[in-house]
Amino acid sequence: MPPQRATLLQVAQRAGVSRSTASFVLAGRHVDMRISEDARQRVLRAAQELDYRPNLMARGLRTKVTRTIALLSDTLASDPYAGRAIHGSLAAAVAHGHLLLIGETEGDAVVEERLISDFLDRQVDAFLYASMSTRYVRVPKQLSGRPVVLLNCLTRAARPTCHAVVPDEVAAGWNAARTLVEAGHRDGIHLVGDPADQAFAGRERVAGLREGFAASGIRLGAAVECSWWPEPAYEAVRRALAGGLAPKALICLNDRVALGAYQALREAGLEIPDDVSVLSFDDSDLAAWLRPQLASISLPHYQLGWKAVELLLGPARQPAVHRVPMPVRLRASVGKP
Amino acid sequence: MPPQRATLLQVAQRAGVSRSTASFVLAGRHVDMRISEDARQRVLRAAQELDYRPNLMARGLRTKVTRTIALLSDTLASDPYAGRAIHGSLAAAVAHGHLLLIGETEGDAVVEERLISDFLDRQVDAFLYASMSTRYVRVPKQLSGRPVVLLNCLTRAARPTCHAVVPDEVAAGWNAARTLVEAGHRDGIHLVGDPADQAFAGRERVAGLREGFAASGIRLGAAVECSWWPEPAYEAVRRALAGGLAPKALICLNDRVALGAYQALREAGLEIPDDVSVLSFDDSDLAAWLRPQLASISLPHYQLGWKAVELLLGPARQPAVHRVPMPVRLRASVGKP
Repeated sequence: MPPQRATLLQVAQRAGVSRSTASFVLAGRHVDMRISEDARQRVLRAAQELDYRPNLMARGLRTKVTRTIALLSDTLASDPYAGRAIHGSLAAAVAHGHLLLIGETEGDAVVEERLISDFLDRQVDAFLYASMSTRYVRVPKQLSGRPVVLLNCLTRAARPTCHAVVPDEVAAGWNAARTLVEAGHRDGIHLVGDPADQAFAGRERVAGLREGFAASGIRLGAAVECSWWPEPAYEAVRRALAGGLAPKALICLNDRVALGAYQALREAGLEIPDDVSVLSFDDSDLAAWLRPQLASISLPHYQLGWKAVELLLGPARQPAVHRVPMPVRLRASVGKP
Repeated sequence: MPPQRATLLQVAQRAGVSRSTASFVLAGRHVDMRISEDARQRVLRAAQELDYRPNLMARGLRTKVTRTIALLSDTLASDPYAGRAIHGSLAAAVAHGHLLLIGETEGDAVVEERLISDFLDRQVDAFLYASMSTRYVRVPKQLSGRPVVLLNCLTRAARPTCHAVVPDEVAAGWNAARTLVEAGHRDGIHLVGDPADQAFAGRERVAGLREGFAASGIRLGAAVECSWWPEPAYEAVRRALAGGLAPKALICLNDRVALGAYQALREAGLEIPDDVSVLSFDDSDLAAWLRPQLASISLPHYQLGWKAVELLLGPARQPAVHRVPMPVRLRASVGKP
C-alpha cells in the first residue's frame, strides 16, 4: 500500500488547534483571522513533521487552479530536434511551479478533440498548442475562451486572440545573406532546397535572404531544388555540378540538405570552404559534427518552448505574434570566395 | 471566460430525473438500481446534448484513479533520440486512455523529491522512472509501494520490486559479431570507443561482441579508445591509421563514433566497405544519412517507452527485468573483407 498522506485534521490535532485554524494558517490567513503567532508556529511545525501536502486536486475543485499546463502538439515528441521545445516548456513550467501534461494528435482532428476533452477533464489551467514545423493553424473551438499560447505556429487572424511564438525566419534569412556578404561573397551564390517543402520557413527564409542580398545589390544564382533531406540534396547538387554549376557558396535550407551538399561537393573533389562555402539553417547537432564544421542559423526550439510558457503564465498582455531570434553559428564552412 | 461545464444536476434536470438517478445511469448502474430504460435513455440523451463530462478530478477524490501517469526522468526530453521513449510512452498511455505528466530532474535529488511531491499532489496513478542512458538506479523512497516501472534503467536488487525495461545490449553485441562473421570477416576487426564512456551499454555490448566472435574462434584486434563523439573518434582513428593500423572492419560503439571513423577513413583514402567495413550501434537518423549508409544495431527507444507503459497499466505480473530486442539494420557499410 502506498503511504497515506497526512490530513489537515491530523495536522490540526498535532498542533492542538481546530481544523479551521490549521486551514487558515496554511492558507496564509492568520492575520485577518487573528490567529496567535504561537498557534501559527505549532501548525507550521506539525505540517512539516507530518509531511503534510495540501491536496491539489481537492483544491482544484474549489479554486479551479491545478497548476498544470497541457502541451498539445501534432508530432512534437516524435521529432528529435523540435522535441527540445518540450524541454524548454517543461523547464519554464517548473520554474513557475507548474507541471506539464503532454499529448500528441499526429494531425488527426478526432484525436485532437478527444485529447482536449481529456485535458479539460483534468482541469488544466492553460494550453500550449504546438506544431512540429512552423505553420498556420486554426485554434480548436474547444479551446476558445481558455488561456492558450501557440507554440511554433500562428493564425492568419489580423488581430490574434492569443499569443503565438515562432522563430524569426525573415531575420534569419537576412542574417544568412549578410554573413556571406561580410565574408566577401558577391556571386556564384545558390540556394539548395525547395522553399515549398516547408512552406512557412521556406518562404520567410528566402524572403529574408533576397532582401539581405538586395541591400548589397547582389542577386542569387539559379536555385538547386530538392526536398529537405540528405539523399535528395546529394542527388540534386551532384547533378547540378555535373551539369556545369560552379558555385562559390551554397545556402542550404537546413542542415540535412547541407549534409547531402557536403557529400556531393566532396565527391566532385571540391573543398569546403576553399572552393565552396556552405551555410545552412537549423543548427542541429549534425552541424557541429561535420568536417569542416557547418555554419548554420540556429532554430531555437528550447527558447520557443520557454517563451511560450512565460507568455502563458506571466502577466496578461495584448495577444501578439512573438518572433524569437535565430542566432548565427559561424563555423569553418564559410570562407572567402 | 471559458465555457462552463454542464453539471450532473443540469443533466438530471434536463432529463427530468433526480440527481442520483442521473448519477447511477452515467455510472452504468441502471440495472442494480432498477432504473427504467426510458429514464436511462433520457439521461444519456441529456448528457450528450449538454456535452456533459464527468469531472475526473472530483472522481479522482472518490476513486483515487485519475488515469494519469507521471514520467519522471533525468534528462530524457533533452536528448534528441532518447526523447523517442517519451513518444512511445505517450502512445501507449493514450491507447490505455491515460495521459502523461512529464518532469525532468537533470539528475538533481532535490528537484526529484519536489517533482515527486508535485506529481503526488495531482494524484497520478502510476510512475515511469526513466533514464536517458541505460544505467543502474535506486528507486526514490517516496515511490515505494506505488505502481512504478523503470524505463531504460534497472536496480541491482536480486529480486526486483518493480518491472524494469532496458535494451538487450548483450544480444546486440552478439548480433553485431555474427553480422561481421557472416560477411566473412575473421581478423583485422577493431572496436572504436571506450566501453567505460557509457558503463552499462559499453560493458554489455563488448561482452556480447566477445562471445559472438569467440563462438567462431575469432579474437578482436587492439581497441581504438575514445569517448563516444565524432571529433574524438575522428582523432583516435586518424592517429591509429597514421600509426600503422590496417583494419578490415571497425565496430563503433555508437553512430556518432562511426561518423568520426568515416571522416578519418575517408581522409586516409580508404573506401567503405571495399577497404574497411564499419558497423555501429544506435541506428540514429544519422546512420541512414551517411554515404555509404551505415549498418547499425538499433536502440529501440520508442519500444522501451511503449513496453514500460504496457507493464505499468497491464495485468499485474511478477516484477522482472525485461530486455527489449535491438534489431540489426544491415546497410551498405558492411561488405566482404
